[in-house]
Amino acid sequence: MRKDSRIQIIGAGLCGALLALRLGQRGYQVEVYEKRPDLRKVDISAGRSINLAFSDRGIKAMKLVGLTQKVASLCIPMNGRMLHDTEGNTVFAAYSGRSHEYINSISRGELNALLLDEAEALTNVQLFFNHKCTAVDFEKGASHLYHYPTKKELVIEADCIFGTDGAGSSMRKSYYLGKKFLFSFSQDYLSHGYKELSILPGANGAYKAYKNALHIWGRGDFMLIALPNLDGSFTVTLFLSYTEGEYNFSNLTTPEKVIEFFEKYFKDALALMPHLPEEFFKNPTSPLGTVKCSPWHYRGKTLLMGDAAHAIVPFYGQGMNASFEDVVEFDTVLNEADENTSWETIFNRFETTRKKDTDAIADLAVDNFHEMKGHVNQPIFREKRTLETALEKHFPTQYASKYSLVTFNEDIGYAAALELGRAQDKALLNLIADHDIVTHEDMSIEELKIVLAKVREATEEILTEDRVSKLGQKEG
Amino acid sequence: MRKDSRIQIIGAGLCGALLALRLGQRGYQVEVYEKRPDLRKVDISAGRSINLAFSDRGIKAMKLVGLTQKVASLCIPMNGRMLHDTEGNTVFAAYSGRSHEYINSISRGELNALLLDEAEALTNVQLFFNHKCTAVDFEKGASHLYHYPTKKELVIEADCIFGTDGAGSSMRKSYYLGKKFLFSFSQDYLSHGYKELSILPGANGAYKAYKNALHIWGRGDFMLIALPNLDGSFTVTLFLSYTEGEYNFSNLTTPEKVIEFFEKYFKDALALMPHLPEEFFKNPTSPLGTVKCSPWHYRGKTLLMGDAAHAIVPFYGQGMNASFEDVVEFDTVLNEADENTSWETIFNRFETTRKKDTDAIADLAVDNFHEMKGHVNQPIFREKRTLETALEKHFPTQYASKYSLVTFNEDIGYAAALELGRAQDKALLNLIADHDIVTHEDMSIEELKIVLAKVREATEEILTEDRVSKLGQKEG
Repeated sequence: MRKDSRIQIIGAGLCGALLALRLGQRGYQVEVYEKRPDLRKVDISAGRSINLAFSDRGIKAMKLVGLTQKVASLCIPMNGRMLHDTEGNTVFAAYSGRSHEYINSISRGELNALLLDEAEALTNVQLFFNHKCTAVDFEKGASHLYHYPTKKELVIEADCIFGTDGAGSSMRKSYYLGKKFLFSFSQDYLSHGYKELSILPGANGAYKAYKNALHIWGRGDFMLIALPNLDGSFTVTLFLSYTEGEYNFSNLTTPEKVIEFFEKYFKDALALMPHLPEEFFKNPTSPLGTVKCSPWHYRGKTLLMGDAAHAIVPFYGQGMNASFEDVVEFDTVLNEADENTSWETIFNRFETTRKKDTDAIADLAVDNFHEMKGHVNQPIFREKRTLETALEKHFPTQYASKYSLVTFNEDIGYAAALELGRAQDKALLNLIADHDIVTHEDMSIEELKIVLAKVREATEEILTEDRVSKLGQKEG
Repeated sequence: MRKDSRIQIIGAGLCGALLALRLGQRGYQVEVYEKRPDLRKVDISAGRSINLAFSDRGIKAMKLVGLTQKVASLCIPMNGRMLHDTEGNTVFAAYSGRSHEYINSISRGELNALLLDEAEALTNVQLFFNHKCTAVDFEKGASHLYHYPTKKELVIEADCIFGTDGAGSSMRKSYYLGKKFLFSFSQDYLSHGYKELSILPGANGAYKAYKNALHIWGRGDFMLIALPNLDGSFTVTLFLSYTEGEYNFSNLTTPEKVIEFFEKYFKDALALMPHLPEEFFKNPTSPLGTVKCSPWHYRGKTLLMGDAAHAIVPFYGQGMNASFEDVVEFDTVLNEADENTSWETIFNRFETTRKKDTDAIADLAVDNFHEMKGHVNQPIFREKRTLETALEKHFPTQYASKYSLVTFNEDIGYAAALELGRAQDKALLNLIADHDIVTHEDMSIEELKIVLAKVREATEEILTEDRVSKLGQKEG
């Protein structure tokens, strides 16, 4: 691809802003068009502080653009899950047996603002806000934009256009409606929606709950979670069915009913949320969906990235991290290309290496929805988790749980993490169920060594059996 | 539901015609609107005779409407696959070890015409052709129709509307574009497309290839198949990648190249297709896609059925059979309802019981795409097939292969057939790969008994292990 290519990016959210920064650093002429006003000047979040889980794959991207230090100051480490039962008892479960492995809570707005500041500081990057993309002419390589302040419609051409315009991507919609090529596409909604709520800070910004944890009130069919913010508040999210169960979003229609529901299931959280009813009815209920599609690119003219290409549900805390990793992976493909490599070849290589991984994290995130809602209640799961934490602690270089593989091993792709992680989970659960491994409170190193050997053997066997049967299915 | 409900059906293809007939037989007032002209009066297929695989699930539907005898006269039994290698050698592989289990080749047009004749003979069923549905107002319960001859647009209301308008359903499109509810939807294309060709009859309608088989020229990355027609011809279908491999639909651009391709890979077929080049460039290349969606219904007003709800690729020969089974299943739900049961409840029950099965056959059909293309070349697959045929022959009531479960066991749902069938395949392939079962030409009953016991044990173990690990994933 030519170094003087004029690049257009649709959407200046987390992925678009990072991509603009990186392509700017590489020397391209970059124009970014964003639908919303500049979030650094206008408070878009309407008073709500939205935070996200930020972990190793995201950090790797920050290293790439030289922002490790600046981003660190925005992070609140969460070393594990704080599990709350209906009585208000809590149990802390570390995310890993290795103490240096933890995730972070970070403000979406602050991080986005930082990325925009850094991108804008480059003379070859220009940001345009209040420009809504209505369609992308992917054959011509031009985007149709509506400028809110002037109410004017613009058509802007570029050598290539990146669609980083989120789960509701207009570029993706143009692919779908254009019917110019075979476009595989799926949108899958969970039966549950979500609503953001809050726990406000105490006096002098004190945290009313333990700061360094992701709090979970798992209740089987629904759950509440809370992540800390720098100002001492927590952003609380309720995941609940739209229509099923005794309590659901359709029948929680009065303040009394909402309080009754929280009294019954989230009593200790309710005590920290005196403003719950107002917030509950003020804040929207939003759906939880997974989007997959292919191809992401069209003839070297356009490419989807981030949520626009692969929106996922939030239950693995990997949405932002996966989008950031897209930029890292794309950068790697650029490194391996030269002046004579066409954009079409580059886009093709990117999708070929990347899509299996974003498909995998999408599936893992849905798995984790079921796991997070219910895991506190299942003894077999608790036993597995205790064992895995012990294995990670005592054999830090020899064992990594599925969660660790996905979250803390940024050099292993999501697809490989899924394959190994699922096989390991299956091995462990079956060994426990069959009483082939016996667990107790204080397992000795010798006992754990035996467990590790058994888990490895069973995992290998599962992987081998799957490969043999796939041979039959795929090629035989 | 009220017996005097006015029912509208969009689409008079195989599923719509059967549904009209059945609901007519049950006494409802039924109006059917079909986009195309009446296929009994106009030759729509443009000279091509398109046939389909018709098997036990379809036959069960014919029993329901009392058409078993009439349909039998349209059927050509296919007792197995005739596998053709590149040298022109053939091997016949029975579909089942039980001689009464076979599939049929049937003319799509003839069968559709029969169903229309039968439906039209009922005074409470009315058919309207040349009415294209442009949209369905699912909130009002009205369809927007365009009448080609008069160029008039009509809006027709009904108590409930069934969308049996195929893979490109306009009712499904209205669900998707309407955005009135969370609509999960996917369209997935294979990398391959297909093209229909033919082998013409010999003198006096003689068959130029063995009549009672589904012929397969599997070549790993692509394949050719042929099904017999009553007039002595065969409909031949080429499945080939659009863009990949040495030969593909994008580079087969001259008669010379097409002949070169067939010379090299399908020599014995080419000898029967002197008109190949003309036909190749006259007939369209069509995509192969899977469509899944949910919900199928909207508030008792509308319901998708057949390909409109679940289009599948043709590799299991189950597309029509699955659509016919929809009608049987819907009829069962009606049987279990009474005058006070709302249509909404009925639609809900239907989707709840049925969707897992149509999802399963969609996945099975994609699996079989890979199996059919490649199975002749893989010794392990041939060994498995030989063993399964022997097991079915000697233990007819104790063993059924995945293919038999899907095709000949209409009282087992597709989802259950998938679960058991895949576990059995995995068990067999791993037992063979590990040399835990030894096979040879003439296995004695005693040897086969041992094999059967081993396969059963390994299958049970796989199912149990999957269940334990699912517990962990889904609820643990």
